[in-house]
Amino acid sequence: MNLVRLIYASHKTEFWNDLELGKLLESAQRFNKAKNLTGMLYFNRKYFLQCIEGQRDDVSALYSEIVKDKRHRDVQILAFEEIDEREMEHWNMCYLPDSQVTQSMVLKYTNGTDFDPFSMTGRGALNFMLNASRQLKASQRDVAEKPAGH
Amino acid sequence: MNLVRLIYASHKTEFWNDLELGKLLESAQRFNKAKNLTGMLYFNRKYFLQCIEGQRDDVSALYSEIVKDKRHRDVQILAFEEIDEREMEHWNMCYLPDSQVTQSMVLKYTNGTDFDPFSMTGRGALNFMLNASRQLKASQRDVAEKPAGH
Amino acid sequence: MNLVRLIYASHKTEFWNDLELGKLLESAQRFNKAKNLTGMLYFNRKYFLQCIEGQRDDVSALYSEIVKDKRHRDVQILAFEEIDEREMEHWNMCYLPDSQVTQSMVLKYTNGTDFDPFSMTGRGALNFMLNASRQLKASQRDVAEKPAGH
Amino acid sequence: MNLVRLIYASHKTEFWNDLELGKLLESAQRFNKAKNLTGMLYFNRKYFLQCIEGQRDDVSALYSEIVKDKRHRDVQILAFEEIDEREMEHWNMCYLPDSQVTQSMVLKYTNGTDFDPFSMTGRGALNFMLNASRQLKASQRDVAEKPAGH
Amino acid sequence: MNLVRLIYASHKTEFWNDLELGKLLESAQRFNKAKNLTGMLYFNRKYFLQCIEGQRDDVSALYSEIVKDKRHRDVQILAFEEIDEREMEHWNMCYLPDSQVTQSMVLKYTNGTDFDPFSMTGRGALNFMLNASRQLKASQRDVAEKPAGH
Amino acid sequence: MNLVRLIYASHKTEFWNDLELGKLLESAQRFNKAKNLTGMLYFNRKYFLQCIEGQRDDVSALYSEIVKDKRHRDVQILAFEEIDEREMEHWNMCYLPDSQVTQSMVLKYTNGTDFDPFSMTGRGALNFMLNASRQLKASQRDVAEKPAGH
Amino acid sequence: MNLVRLIYASHKTEFWNDLELGKLLESAQRFNKAKNLTGMLYFNRKYFLQCIEGQRDDVSALYSEIVKDKRHRDVQILAFEEIDEREMEHWNMCYLPDSQVTQSMVLKYTNGTDFDPFSMTGRGALNFMLNASRQLKASQRDVAEKPAGH
Amino acid sequence: MNLVRLIYASHKTEFWNDLELGKLLESAQRFNKAKNLTGMLYFNRKYFLQCIEGQRDDVSALYSEIVKDKRHRDVQILAFEEIDEREMEHWNMCYLPDSQVTQSMVLKYTNGTDFDPFSMTGRGALNFMLNASRQLKASQRDVAEKPAGH
Amino acid sequence: MNLVRLIYASHKTEFWNDLELGKLLESAQRFNKAKNLTGMLYFNRKYFLQCIEGQRDDVSALYSEIVKDKRHRDVQILAFEEIDEREMEHWNMCYLPDSQVTQSMVLKYTNGTDFDPFSMTGRGALNFMLNASRQLKASQRDVAEKPAGH
Amino acid sequence: MNLVRLIYASHKTEFWNDLELGKLLESAQRFNKAKNLTGMLYFNRKYFLQCIEGQRDDVSALYSEIVKDKRHRDVQILAFEEIDEREMEHWNMCYLPDSQVTQSMVLKYTNGTDFDPFSMTGRGALNFMLNASRQLKASQRDVAEKPAGH
Ligand SMILES: Cc1cc2nc3c(=O)[nH]c(=O)nc-3n(C[C@H](O)[C@H](O)[C@H](O)COP(=O)(O)O)c2cc1C
Ligand SMILES: Cc1cc2nc3c(=O)[nH]c(=O)nc-3n(C[C@H](O)[C@H](O)[C@H](O)COP(=O)(O)O)c2cc1C
Ligand SMILES: Cc1cc2nc3c(=O)[nH]c(=O)nc-3n(C[C@H](O)[C@H](O)[C@H](O)COP(=O)(O)O)c2cc1C
Ligand SMILES: Cc1cc2nc3c(=O)[nH]c(=O)nc-3n(C[C@H](O)[C@H](O)[C@H](O)COP(=O)(O)O)c2cc1C
Ligand SMILES: Cc1cc2nc3c(=O)[nH]c(=O)nc-3n(C[C@H](O)[C@H](O)[C@H](O)COP(=O)(O)O)c2cc1C
Ligand SMILES: Cc1cc2nc3c(=O)[nH]c(=O)nc-3n(C[C@H](O)[C@H](O)[C@H](O)COP(=O)(O)O)c2cc1C
Ligand SMILES: Cc1cc2nc3c(=O)[nH]c(=O)nc-3n(C[C@H](O)[C@H](O)[C@H](O)COP(=O)(O)O)c2cc1C
Ligand SMILES: Cc1cc2nc3c(=O)[nH]c(=O)nc-3n(C[C@H](O)[C@H](O)[C@H](O)COP(=O)(O)O)c2cc1C
Ligand SMILES: Cc1cc2nc3c(=O)[nH]c(=O)nc-3n(C[C@H](O)[C@H](O)[C@H](O)COP(=O)(O)O)c2cc1C
Ligand SMILES: Cc1cc2nc3c(=O)[nH]c(=O)nc-3n(C[C@H](O)[C@H](O)[C@H](O)COP(=O)(O)O)c2cc1C
Repeated sequence: MNLVRLIYASHKTEFWNDLELGKLLESAQRFNKAKNLTGMLYFNRKYFLQCIEGQRDDVSALYSEIVKDKRHRDVQILAFEEIDEREMEHWNMCYLPDSQVTQSMVLKYTNGTDFDPFSMTGRGALNFMLNASRQLKASQRDVAEKPAGH
Repeated sequence: MNLVRLIYASHKTEFWNDLELGKLLESAQRFNKAKNLTGMLYFNRKYFLQCIEGQRDDVSALYSEIVKDKRHRDVQILAFEEIDEREMEHWNMCYLPDSQVTQSMVLKYTNGTDFDPFSMTGRGALNFMLNASRQLKASQRDVAEKPAGH
Repeated sequence: MNLVRLIYASHKTEFWNDLELGKLLESAQRFNKAKNLTGMLYFNRKYFLQCIEGQRDDVSALYSEIVKDKRHRDVQILAFEEIDEREMEHWNMCYLPDSQVTQSMVLKYTNGTDFDPFSMTGRGALNFMLNASRQLKASQRDVAEKPAGH
Repeated sequence: MNLVRLIYASHKTEFWNDLELGKLLESAQRFNKAKNLTGMLYFNRKYFLQCIEGQRDDVSALYSEIVKDKRHRDVQILAFEEIDEREMEHWNMCYLPDSQVTQSMVLKYTNGTDFDPFSMTGRGALNFMLNASRQLKASQRDVAEKPAGH
Repeated sequence: MNLVRLIYASHKTEFWNDLELGKLLESAQRFNKAKNLTGMLYFNRKYFLQCIEGQRDDVSALYSEIVKDKRHRDVQILAFEEIDEREMEHWNMCYLPDSQVTQSMVLKYTNGTDFDPFSMTGRGALNFMLNASRQLKASQRDVAEKPAGH
Repeated sequence: MNLVRLIYASHKTEFWNDLELGKLLESAQRFNKAKNLTGMLYFNRKYFLQCIEGQRDDVSALYSEIVKDKRHRDVQILAFEEIDEREMEHWNMCYLPDSQVTQSMVLKYTNGTDFDPFSMTGRGALNFMLNASRQLKASQRDVAEKPAGH
Repeated sequence: MNLVRLIYASHKTEFWNDLELGKLLESAQRFNKAKNLTGMLYFNRKYFLQCIEGQRDDVSALYSEIVKDKRHRDVQILAFEEIDEREMEHWNMCYLPDSQVTQSMVLKYTNGTDFDPFSMTGRGALNFMLNASRQLKASQRDVAEKPAGH
Repeated sequence: MNLVRLIYASHKTEFWNDLELGKLLESAQRFNKAKNLTGMLYFNRKYFLQCIEGQRDDVSALYSEIVKDKRHRDVQILAFEEIDEREMEHWNMCYLPDSQVTQSMVLKYTNGTDFDPFSMTGRGALNFMLNASRQLKASQRDVAEKPAGH
Repeated sequence: MNLVRLIYASHKTEFWNDLELGKLLESAQRFNKAKNLTGMLYFNRKYFLQCIEGQRDDVSALYSEIVKDKRHRDVQILAFEEIDEREMEHWNMCYLPDSQVTQSMVLKYTNGTDFDPFSMTGRGALNFMLNASRQLKASQRDVAEKPAGH
Repeated sequence: MNLVRLIYASHKTEFWNDLELGKLLESAQRFNKAKNLTGMLYFNRKYFLQCIEGQRDDVSALYSEIVKDKRHRDVQILAFEEIDEREMEHWNMCYLPDSQVTQSMVLKYTNGTDFDPFSMTGRGALNFMLNASRQLKASQRDVAEKPAGH
């Protein structure tokens, strides 16, 4: 079964509570590890941008769950592609807080400094994510989680 | 806003009733026309394979609905791409019954004559759909619906 | 001096009067012929989509005039490229009425049957225009004007 | 909405006053920041060459304003393209004084050491601008303004 | 699971009996149909050249069987590739007798008129097979078997 | 005669005994050296993934033997290509134990940390093998055998 | 010695006399035939556009002569390339009078209906010439001269 | 063993006798057929241009013989390439007399109407030969010999 | 107006006097600077090889002068191309004496150590010149003249 | 005249005497220098592999001589191409003894550690030679001869 990479954007709703972020990540990492899913989640208190890598059926199944999650809305696919190798194999779900990526990096890929993923093209979203993941790998820091698969 | 094309496969459930196919198509066509969505639905009494073209947010919104529909399960994205022009501009949702595509065409793209879309690669699924849509256009027959947008 | 092709979209204003379309075209054709400009104007009673080919300074000078014209607003560049040869050398400004291009052709390139050029990508706009110009040439009909340059 | 990059050249008029340059830049930076526009302005006491990056409608709207500005004339588009990422995300409008770019760099891209942007091809203009912006980034100096978006 | 195409050459042994060719084909077609394998077998009373298309595990499993078949030896893989669509979807195993392909066609792809598949490159073998299958399709004749999958 | 590279996956059977691994490698290296075959064998106590480089007939002949070996089953070709130069010229059969490649490297190319080569595409398998061989060469360590050809 | 193709434009001077055109062509054809030069000359009573094909030294030698000819001035190279085959092998110097190419063809490649070769790019000039030569070949008419080389 | 195509030019010597051409061709065809060599020989009473296709060692062996043949001199390789399929599979050595190819075809690829193969580039020589062989095939005429391999 | 680059070779005549080289360079640099022409002149006491960059009309005008100069003959164009940027912007006419480029560099691009530019292809001549100019830039030495444009 | 590169393999005969190698190289270097030929000769006491660069007629003329040399047989062309620049400009004929290239380098490109050039493809032979020449250049050692052209 081919590996795929999916990137989507969404908008938080009134059901979202910033305090639960840690819990969400924890359970996401647990679930993703069980399914061998890897990826990154970017959140700026308003929008989510998430990248998920894994087996095609697992990625789709998770996406179907995520779509039903009341904590966000307007879930929108930005990019989807079959891949030969993952780029985010080090994280089951790496959290990328807003402060970590510089303002100019957001501006580089979107139309604003208040990050709005809906204004990104598929390729822009992909570049943004790959760019961020490469910077993270370079800095050798395992962000906000234990290594994937352990 | 860019146009996109999404193709997914799914498996019918016990909630599906073949007799309601006509009604589903009718309401799909009505809804899609309102949203300027175009595409094709292939069904072989077991699996669905659907292609949806339109504005990125509309396609994602419809996909989010479809994913929740109890009448099928294992909804799985096979292909997704930004496009400059639609290929299925003539149909808001063209129904492609199993008998219409020949057995050898199914065999050409999948591993069987009993069509199983889950065994298709993204490119295979795309080729299958574009191939079918071109054959339909060539034969000049408006299949199973009125022209899109009227 | 290199030749260029520019495509823009705009929105008519209250200063626009459908009855003056003929006059506009006539004077546009006269001016364009004097400047060796060629192109196409598409209008659907709400939006304009125009393609202008010619010498870079002439195209820019005309565009600067057009931008100031009170009869439309939100004038937005969709595509611009240096070209080795024109595609619309047969018309100083060919008028492409809404009825002439089929509904499905509009749907093919935009997100609707009520044509909205602002939803087109640059490449989509270019394809739409070139597609239309090729169809016109094929049908051998000189539409709504005398040959360019006479 | 896609990001675009537009480059134009123009000729100063008698309404231009070198002393107002600072004021122009300041207000340009303020406006551009509000609209998330980024770019560079090159001026050699005779010609302007400007590069503007941002959302397509914002770039076109600003260009329509600039075209009407009496302080320059013969405003001519040299290059326009849809982009996936900005190159000038660090500056809302970076001023590039004549002295800063060496004479040989001007000679490299144009036909003279007295810079004449009208003699540049679109690609030449693009290369010139990207080259300059990369040199600026490399030298780590924020020229003549505060970081974009702050 | 991806589809693949495998081409191999082999040399008949003393266990081979020309009279059993019909029986071999019949059982091959029966088996291949059950496994949705398609392809072509070329035989010139000395060498075999066979092309097999189907699911990767099925093709490999059949190849493992064929390798053990005492009726030929020196079984050698010439080409193997993942494919998006089959080229031989019309035949579960089409027999291509020596007389049917002209001498010059053999000479075109090998070093002789007495066909020796071992002298072919992978690409040459592929071209030979695709060329033959296209000629067969063009001539609309179903050779030596019933349609695949029935 | 052209050089080729073949990669296959297989599943150990009850006839396999981990203690005999050393003996298998030794005899494989002896045989391969005699035939100028080079390559790599990856084993994770469950699956084998092997890459073999050499002359086309030798590679095929060895593969035919391997296929009949009762110690594994479900032998499946993942990739096969004609090559201009070997990548594994330093090892007649390099053993790559599971511990040596990191977990994240397995995850990068497959759908799991428990390595399952059957879930790899041909390209993925190739990348995995070439990646591993490059890392080995870089680390300058001759793993588990004497240099090839001596 | 490689073959080359050279295209230049020039402006007639007061030393030019339209009545001598026939004589010029005749002697040009005689000379070119002796040197195996082939090509086309376009003249619109004001400008010349000429294409010359042949051996590199012969083309350069002729061009050196032409440059010194007082009957025109501002001789300017538009295009020059090494070629594997000629496109104008049928004419030692084919005369292409203004009336023969349509107005719209001139407009297609230049900025005007009064042909001005100086406004052409190299590629535009090449396309114009090749286009004209293909049309001439298609119409099977040997224009204004006997076949080359006789 | 790969197939190759070799093209060379040479100059006849005093040992050459035009009357023996027939005999040369006959024995060449006999020998080439035995070795499965195919090709074309062009001769204009002064120069030879020959194309030979076949197995690499056979082509080289024949070329070594030809080089020693006293009937021509200055034997010079113009082109050599590995091929997947022959282009001249219909002729063991097709004779292409000077009269058969038109003067303009010679002029198209060389610098003269008196054919001089030494002035051709490798690609030019190849194009000339392939062009000639395609014309011959198209005209369906077997020139000056019986089919290859019989 | 586009920039172009022209390279030609020539042969000195009896009118040439090595002692005047300095004067030639000085006046060439003066003239070229006035016309914003840049380039390089290579001379080995027998042949000249010169590269000239600048506006198309200026380059052609200078070339027309050079062609008439009695001090050399057989002036032959080797390469000509439209360019987006100069490579020799640092020198109005850089003199490249024979001693400066090593013998092996001459041999690399021509057929001899006694440099003969007539034996170069257009691409070879271009590579030679660009290679030399890059080496000069790298060595940071302004050879034999003051910076261009001052 | 274009430069070409030719690579051939051959087999020593009983007329070859290892003791004469030095003399052969010396006279080869003398002759090649006179003709501006450059290249490399690899010899492993059994086979020769030689690369010759130079003017097309000189390379062919030398090859015609070499073919007649009784000291080797089965002379076989492996690769031939027109080149823009030499790779072996530093050696008129560089001798590459067997010990110098490592065993694994031979194995990398052929099917054995006892080097057999006849088993190489054209591209393999080219890669081997270029690889060897680059290693030699890198090690800055002039092997077994004085610099070319002196
Ligand atoms: C923005 C966002 C991202 C999420 N990402 C993941 C994820 O990567 N993995 C995961 O298992 N759940 C993720 N979830 C949670 C799922 O939507 C859902 O809550 C989860 O599958 C658990 O469902 P359950 O509580 O019914 O078990 C995410 C939710 C949101 C709002
Ligand atoms: C296989 C399948 C395909 C469907 N395709 C469409 C479609 O193209 N458009 C659409 O509006 N609904 C489609 N539907 C129905 C939606 O899932 C959902 O029922 C629809 O949006 C109407 O929802 P509603 O009844 O809540 O209004 C499809 C359902 C299935 C099972
Ligand atoms: C949608 C639209 C398209 C136009 N196209 C052209 C045109 O192609 N050529 C032209 O000369 N004027 C065109 N015009 C008119 C110009 O905006 C302007 O009125 C014209 O240059 C005449 O200006 P004047 O009345 O000041 O001479 C167009 C106007 C509109 C609203
Ligand atoms: C060469 C030139 C460049 C300019 N660049 C910008 C710019 O980047 N952003 C901007 O807001 N205004 C720019 N302006 C000023 C605009 O033309 C116009 O004055 C501005 O939009 C303010 O208009 P307002 O005074 O009517 O608000 C520029 C003007 C000139 C002459
Ligand atoms: C040249 C050749 C081609 C064959 N092709 C097929 C084939 O396409 N399908 C097949 O099922 N068996 C094929 N066979 C037969 C198999 O080798 C084997 O006999 C077959 O799988 C039946 O095995 P069984 O008799 O043990 O059931 C081929 C045999 C030969 C010699
Ligand atoms: C996973 C696996 C990999 C093997 N790799 C090789 C190999 O690279 N070379 C080899 O000669 N034998 C290899 N063998 C062993 C062969 O299958 C077979 O045992 C071998 O050719 C010796 O056969 P023999 O015992 O009949 O001589 C491998 C076996 C297994 C199970
Ligand atoms: C526009 C133009 C085109 C010409 N083309 C050719 C030509 O193709 N061949 C040629 O021999 N002379 C051509 N000539 C004439 C040469 O310039 C020159 O007169 C010719 O080489 C004869 O020179 P002669 O009278 O000194 O022998 C051309 C002249 C002009 C003005
Ligand atoms: C121009 C030319 C082309 C030739 N072409 C072939 C050829 O295609 N095949 C061939 O066997 N001999 C060809 N020959 C003849 C060989 O040079 C040589 O005479 C031939 O191999 C027979 O040699 P033999 O007489 O020693 O048997 C050609 C000779 C010439 C001069
Ligand atoms: C090899 C060669 C190269 C030359 N290069 C240039 C040059 O780059 N610029 C230039 O102005 N003159 C150059 N000249 C000189 C011109 O041919 C001519 O003499 C020059 O334009 C001055 O002409 P004038 O003496 O009539 O003013 C060159 C001459 C030769 C022989
Ligand atoms: C393997 C091999 C390589 C040779 N390479 C060259 C060479 O590069 N240059 C050369 O002049 N002679 C080379 N020769 C020698 C020629 O075959 C021939 O002897 C040489 O041209 C001298 O001929 P002569 O003795 O009749 O003058 C080589 C010979 C052999 C066997």
